[in-house]
Amino acid sequence: MLIEEIIEKKRDKKELTREEISFFIKGYVNNEIPDYQASALLMAIYLNGMNKKEIGILTDEMRVSGEVWDLSDIPGLKVDKHSTGGVGDKVSLVLGPMVCSCGAKLAKMSGRGLGHTGGTIDKLESIPGFKTTQTYEQFKKQVKDVGMVIIGQDKNIDPADKKLYALRDVTATVSSIPLIASSIMSKKLASGADCILLDVKYGSGAFMKTIEEAKNLATTMVDIGKELNKDVKAEITDMDQPLGYAVGNNLEVKEVIDTLKGNGPKDLYELCLYSGSIMLKQAKIFDDLDKAKEALIENINNGKAFEKFKEFVAAQGGDVSYIENPEKFDVCKNIVPVYSKEDGFVNRIDALAIGKASMRLGGGREKLDDIIDMAAGIVLNKKIGDKVAKGELLATLYTNKNEEIIEEVHEEVLTAFYIKDKLEIETDKPHILIE
Amino acid sequence: MLIEEIIEKKRDKKELTREEISFFIKGYVNNEIPDYQASALLMAIYLNGMNKKEIGILTDEMRVSGEVWDLSDIPGLKVDKHSTGGVGDKVSLVLGPMVCSCGAKLAKMSGRGLGHTGGTIDKLESIPGFKTTQTYEQFKKQVKDVGMVIIGQDKNIDPADKKLYALRDVTATVSSIPLIASSIMSKKLASGADCILLDVKYGSGAFMKTIEEAKNLATTMVDIGKELNKDVKAEITDMDQPLGYAVGNNLEVKEVIDTLKGNGPKDLYELCLYSGSIMLKQAKIFDDLDKAKEALIENINNGKAFEKFKEFVAAQGGDVSYIENPEKFDVCKNIVPVYSKEDGFVNRIDALAIGKASMRLGGGREKLDDIIDMAAGIVLNKKIGDKVAKGELLATLYTNKNEEIIEEVHEEVLTAFYIKDKLEIETDKPHILIE
Repeated sequence: MLIEEIIEKKRDKKELTREEISFFIKGYVNNEIPDYQASALLMAIYLNGMNKKEIGILTDEMRVSGEVWDLSDIPGLKVDKHSTGGVGDKVSLVLGPMVCSCGAKLAKMSGRGLGHTGGTIDKLESIPGFKTTQTYEQFKKQVKDVGMVIIGQDKNIDPADKKLYALRDVTATVSSIPLIASSIMSKKLASGADCILLDVKYGSGAFMKTIEEAKNLATTMVDIGKELNKDVKAEITDMDQPLGYAVGNNLEVKEVIDTLKGNGPKDLYELCLYSGSIMLKQAKIFDDLDKAKEALIENINNGKAFEKFKEFVAAQGGDVSYIENPEKFDVCKNIVPVYSKEDGFVNRIDALAIGKASMRLGGGREKLDDIIDMAAGIVLNKKIGDKVAKGELLATLYTNKNEEIIEEVHEEVLTAFYIKDKLEIETDKPHILIE
Repeated sequence: MLIEEIIEKKRDKKELTREEISFFIKGYVNNEIPDYQASALLMAIYLNGMNKKEIGILTDEMRVSGEVWDLSDIPGLKVDKHSTGGVGDKVSLVLGPMVCSCGAKLAKMSGRGLGHTGGTIDKLESIPGFKTTQTYEQFKKQVKDVGMVIIGQDKNIDPADKKLYALRDVTATVSSIPLIASSIMSKKLASGADCILLDVKYGSGAFMKTIEEAKNLATTMVDIGKELNKDVKAEITDMDQPLGYAVGNNLEVKEVIDTLKGNGPKDLYELCLYSGSIMLKQAKIFDDLDKAKEALIENINNGKAFEKFKEFVAAQGGDVSYIENPEKFDVCKNIVPVYSKEDGFVNRIDALAIGKASMRLGGGREKLDDIIDMAAGIVLNKKIGDKVAKGELLATLYTNKNEEIIEEVHEEVLTAFYIKDKLEIETDKPHILIE
């Protein structure tokens, strides 16, 4: 088999076989196929697409390109959850303890933030002592003993994705549905969960800008599940404003703690109840979404979800005294209020602008090797639908950066709020579930 | 400027600017842009195309990527000729002396053969002593003194094409009209000629399989001439059977000598008269095609064309005694007749099959570093339209290869002749000129 012939087939819009896709993935991971042939094939896939069968095979071949972690000897169905990323998206940290306190087992590998989006691993590392790497044995043990584990992407899992992603990043082939879907799903499927709930976000703060793109990606990933006999469901959710109030690593962990104690932002809590109900049904703990939701609410109210979070943090070496006394977390030396310059209603909060602003305050990375200031970020005081008076607090900036940056970011955050005389948008967008 | 953004634009079917194309070519030649980004862009160009303006710019930027040879201080218009390649295509060696004996100046760089197609440079090197490399100064001097020079592609000219072609060859991006056209034309335009006649071949033995593809490529190259203010014309000619009778290097040179002496195959001679008339008009030596043709015929009949060929061979170090006494050329030890197994008319001779057969006999290269047997090849005895009787000679094989290869090739050559009871095809296909 020749890679030139495989490139030629996809160039000519023909369907690739399992043998051809396997030859490509194995050859690329083993450095037998050079980058310049891989990138030509990636561009041909970008422009000519792949059908369901090809995407399923591509995902499966990437899945087995490295270690495959097997959790099947642990009793019960293991669940996993993935968000395509957004601003203020701390769902996993709330949702995990909620569903695990109801008996589900969450086994999850997660990523770091880049650009305007945050990453679950960074947020966890803002808890002093928290370790985000584990061996296969440690990971399995924690699933069994605690029922919940979240670590960074293990480097031995899915090396094909790591290599392909780096190449896509510099060859304008990132934004391809078959390539995005196989990248996400191959990693998820290699880390051992039985059922996966995907949260595909759309809007200014998300990678998918429109609901149609989000549906397309979600459907593709659910179809991969069908091709590979895995229970995969996807919810489509709005990222037209940040989720919750806090954006930035330890600021978000503090909001997670509030939420697990029953005092969280409404949008975050409701999304967790909705997602959690689906996951508990996927894990076959409840047949009925309403019953599942009741159980989740109960475990927030009786403190079991919060206890599970502490158990999880302790199991990964985190200092639980910070969870019990969140005032212990580092606070930035500059705390800058942003006041409204007009009266009216918040019609929109540009999530992309807020995400970038938080990054510039030190809360995110512009480049992969930037170091994050765990205490930096933004806490909103108003959200879409809220009435606001001139001079009222819109948001607070937390940073250790200098005056010049603060001034610029202050202006950016102010501009991110679209305040009008009337409320002109629908505030409650329904969630869509693709299954 | 970022190469990623240029790839992204072409990926999204947008028009590239001169600055962008120049950035790509300069960066690629200087090794600042890696192969893997270049190949992604090539695939995007392959699939999304380029408009006339972009192709003109691409050609021009490739043209100036290395040395540009300037012949403007030599009096008269310098002509060049390029064939897209075929089987038995020895036109340049006949046409050159014909037009130069009428006062035109031919300054040509040419290629080597690969696969089933032969190359003018290989054919010339079958003449003992013939040198196919020259410095810029030598090249200019010979144009001035002899009026005719043919050397191999100079390595300092158009390095962009050399690098891009090698990459296209392994990334399934060869057969793209914008990329083929810019590759041919950039080299031609960098070597100094004022007017160019292209011979775009179609049919089984050519790269372009259909007349439509050939017209498309020819029009693209003529349009490049218009974009860059050069007189470029293109003829579309048939390669459904080999040109002339001889296929193989010194076998073809012997046929060239016969043709220049007025004893050549009709198809070869007529194509040279047709092409030569156009070139003499391009060189402004004749206004009228018929008058030009008369002059060409006259110079065949009075021996001036043959004398010009000897002068050209001598100027490049070739042993003219071989031209005067072609029986001095090496002859292979195995000379194998191929006899017809049936009565009828030759309806087709598969030029691709004959080209490959000649290659297998030693007359061509399968890989770039194969060594050619200058005496090996095939001489046809029958052509399309000829009546043939069972047992009559169809062709003769010349080779130093062993029995096993001879037997296989014998069979292949026999199969290449399509003999039917009746003649079912048009024997005289009109030439098409695109200008």
